[in-house]
Amino acid sequence: MCRWIAYRGETIALEHYVTAPAHSLIAQSIHALESTASTNGDGFGLGWYGDHIEPGLFRDVRPAWSDENLRYLCRHIQSHLFFAHVRAATGTPTTRANCHPFACGRWMFMHNGVIGHWPRVRRRVEALIPDGLYGSRIGTTDSEAMFLAIMGAGITHDPIGATLRTLAAVTDIVTENESGEPMRFTAALANGCDLFAFRYAANVKGNTLYYRTAGTDVVIVSEPLDRDHAGWIEVPENHMVVARAGRRAELLSFPEPPRIAAE
Amino acid sequence: MCRWIAYRGETIALEHYVTAPAHSLIAQSIHALESTASTNGDGFGLGWYGDHIEPGLFRDVRPAWSDENLRYLCRHIQSHLFFAHVRAATGTPTTRANCHPFACGRWMFMHNGVIGHWPRVRRRVEALIPDGLYGSRIGTTDSEAMFLAIMGAGITHDPIGATLRTLAAVTDIVTENESGEPMRFTAALANGCDLFAFRYAANVKGNTLYYRTAGTDVVIVSEPLDRDHAGWIEVPENHMVVARAGRRAELLSFPEPPRIAAE
Amino acid sequence: MCRWIAYRGETIALEHYVTAPAHSLIAQSIHALESTASTNGDGFGLGWYGDHIEPGLFRDVRPAWSDENLRYLCRHIQSHLFFAHVRAATGTPTTRANCHPFACGRWMFMHNGVIGHWPRVRRRVEALIPDGLYGSRIGTTDSEAMFLAIMGAGITHDPIGATLRTLAAVTDIVTENESGEPMRFTAALANGCDLFAFRYAANVKGNTLYYRTAGTDVVIVSEPLDRDHAGWIEVPENHMVVARAGRRAELLSFPEPPRIAAE
Amino acid sequence: MCRWIAYRGETIALEHYVTAPAHSLIAQSIHALESTASTNGDGFGLGWYGDHIEPGLFRDVRPAWSDENLRYLCRHIQSHLFFAHVRAATGTPTTRANCHPFACGRWMFMHNGVIGHWPRVRRRVEALIPDGLYGSRIGTTDSEAMFLAIMGAGITHDPIGATLRTLAAVTDIVTENESGEPMRFTAALANGCDLFAFRYAANVKGNTLYYRTAGTDVVIVSEPLDRDHAGWIEVPENHMVVARAGRRAELLSFPEPPRIAAE
Repeated sequence: MCRWIAYRGETIALEHYVTAPAHSLIAQSIHALESTASTNGDGFGLGWYGDHIEPGLFRDVRPAWSDENLRYLCRHIQSHLFFAHVRAATGTPTTRANCHPFACGRWMFMHNGVIGHWPRVRRRVEALIPDGLYGSRIGTTDSEAMFLAIMGAGITHDPIGATLRTLAAVTDIVTENESGEPMRFTAALANGCDLFAFRYAANVKGNTLYYRTAGTDVVIVSEPLDRDHAGWIEVPENHMVVARAGRRAELLSFPEPPRIAAE
Repeated sequence: MCRWIAYRGETIALEHYVTAPAHSLIAQSIHALESTASTNGDGFGLGWYGDHIEPGLFRDVRPAWSDENLRYLCRHIQSHLFFAHVRAATGTPTTRANCHPFACGRWMFMHNGVIGHWPRVRRRVEALIPDGLYGSRIGTTDSEAMFLAIMGAGITHDPIGATLRTLAAVTDIVTENESGEPMRFTAALANGCDLFAFRYAANVKGNTLYYRTAGTDVVIVSEPLDRDHAGWIEVPENHMVVARAGRRAELLSFPEPPRIAAE
Repeated sequence: MCRWIAYRGETIALEHYVTAPAHSLIAQSIHALESTASTNGDGFGLGWYGDHIEPGLFRDVRPAWSDENLRYLCRHIQSHLFFAHVRAATGTPTTRANCHPFACGRWMFMHNGVIGHWPRVRRRVEALIPDGLYGSRIGTTDSEAMFLAIMGAGITHDPIGATLRTLAAVTDIVTENESGEPMRFTAALANGCDLFAFRYAANVKGNTLYYRTAGTDVVIVSEPLDRDHAGWIEVPENHMVVARAGRRAELLSFPEPPRIAAE
Repeated sequence: MCRWIAYRGETIALEHYVTAPAHSLIAQSIHALESTASTNGDGFGLGWYGDHIEPGLFRDVRPAWSDENLRYLCRHIQSHLFFAHVRAATGTPTTRANCHPFACGRWMFMHNGVIGHWPRVRRRVEALIPDGLYGSRIGTTDSEAMFLAIMGAGITHDPIGATLRTLAAVTDIVTENESGEPMRFTAALANGCDLFAFRYAANVKGNTLYYRTAGTDVVIVSEPLDRDHAGWIEVPENHMVVARAGRRAELLSFPEPPRIAAE
């Protein structure tokens, strides 16, 4: 289980959320509170939108708490929409290509969760990625595979639908056999204008997800950045936070359970 | 194009071949002579057999020429069968999982070459890997995919046949369209007792390969370790060097061109 | 505060102590029990003696718990005298040159502790290093400076005296002003034949140190490798464990407090 | 010998000079033309000024040519004054702390050159660093020591004088013995408003340095970024380029040879 933060709002330096708060993401990298993995030291990443239509990425394999580059970049990079992520690996190697966020064209994605028995189901999940996008797979995580599958499921015209259809397809794969492998998916998705965050799980309780708004600004996090939890709203399972360009963030329930119609 | 060395013989410290010679592999990492890529600075690796039935691996993403760990390990590790490799990446990221050698069970493999249009044919080559071995794929290179395909083609009972069958299958994939993508394969394979090296290419001239023997000792290299080339025998294309346990190394031609019978 | 282990005895694979026990050093890297720093993720190192008169070193900046190279090397390297160390940085950067153990000629050293107000006293401690050894200082830690000062204080003929004289000189430096800065020194020193371990502190309680013997074999650790503490003897402050070549390890008190005579 | 570029002018994305030109700094990292070291693969760094009064830094130990973080940051970071550097180590380890640029307060520095017999003279050069700045020494290079010595020689009120006085003092140290060790110093210094570049050598020919202006914009480089050299002016030895805030860059000769008056 990893820890992450997503921000959409006025342009600010990343440090306001990533390094400065009492229980900042950096602090969570060495000691998270609401995670089964209290240490999230298996790499980290930043992703942000600026003048360029495609996001910038900065990912490295060292623990976030000791990385001087990260501290400099959080002070100097400003953005109206950014992601930050600290990783606790669940079986795949600690490489930059396996660190979050992932980017493809103008889209950016990060994830906290796991697909149960990944080595066994990996091939079938990768088969959801269209040929034209398979060359963009440079790592080996379940998270990157999910992202590219969502990309291929029609993200441009219907990002929410593409995500829910992919969740349905992957849920089918993990629940196919009798046992019903656990699947957890607490993820953020953005295109430079709109920000989406999802909380979902199959065959198991989902990971925590919170958000906080101020006007049209919104911050979405795995766990609150301060200890008193003031102002943070928990996102229930099967719900999503949708922050479209220029509009307030909304909490919405999934229109229907992510299952494939034919079931 | 990468540079590599494979040794089978009396137990010696790795430094005798990896760091000490005038034109050692470390020297080749910063300035190779018979390669289109004169700099091989995209990571390196050692693989060796000792008391344990499975090989040891040491791989890192930094250039070999400045790595103090590599120097210490080459001085202190002794082996009767070892591989060393310096990498010039051909498109896939510089991660440890993409560095050579690769290991699976008691087998070890390293490669200098490329499969043309890898992003386009990757999926079909990966499909040659059996399900039971797909979980062992932790990187994204063409080389690791070839190795796992060879593993799955019956390596235990017939390592030469498994390699040639895989070469035939991959040749079919890359030559399927009109253009005929280039494929180069200069590789070493070992199981702790036997050492095999292959020189092959399709639709293009192959990479260089040399070997030198002294009794049952054999050293196989991408390019000679000294400038006068004394004692080095060039391996022709479609040939292999076979050094079975306790026997002298032999130079053999491929029994037939690596094509699938049904062609 | 760091965690470490030192072994002297029959030649064995390092994994028997570094990776295999229930509460192995690798387990301590992510969750130590008797340390103020429960996470020791700021790099790690191995040092060992083999056929060569000088020790081998392997040090890296990533957390020990996820390093696949470390796992391979612990399985394949065998030694009759080795050190292993996981680091929790106390202010100096996470670089390989700042990771333990340190080596100089045939000597090897590692340390758990701190010299209070290091930035302020660093220059005076570095002044204890003789000119001829100053070129061997490739990092910036208090630990490496202490080691080179000990080297220069007559280590060849009197390693214990050289260590105690250096402790006296550094104690003088840190206690010079009224406040009395804390100094902790729990360290191991070896030359390929003899192994020494020291527990010392000034102006503060010292870090824990334990050892366990079986015949002439001895293991010395920051904290026990199993949860029941069976067979582990705690080393009191101002004491040392001395394991000379071919002899049983002895627990000895410091002959006198490490103060400079002229005080 | 390293390669570097310094820019002062209109705010632009770093990629315009660091990654885009035909013979960009990234291209020079794998194949420089006017350097004794054609490969500059021992780490790299960026330093830039933005809204914050202190510069941002991004340094890493991998070769610049394969670093995906560097590519993203050069596209997304914009600045009116920035440095970029690729390193060919001259004896000190490849660590982030040894990569250029160096920063201290609002000042930033980078260097191409060497102080002859560094291990022998290091201690005397470090003695030029005032106590209050010695804690800022986190690496072990001659370059960082020179920078901190310049900082301590009155950089705030007289950056040129502080640099020349430090050059005089170091020249004295390296030429003290009969042999006269070589010293090369081709360096850039900035405070967010003003940019200075120096070309100097003692007992040897200096490294190359060029600059090109367009209005008040100026680019200063180790070697031209295009192969035809059009518009580049070579900086003679004992000369400096001075680009003060809002004014055109000027080429000035050193007021007097950097020697200490008392000689």
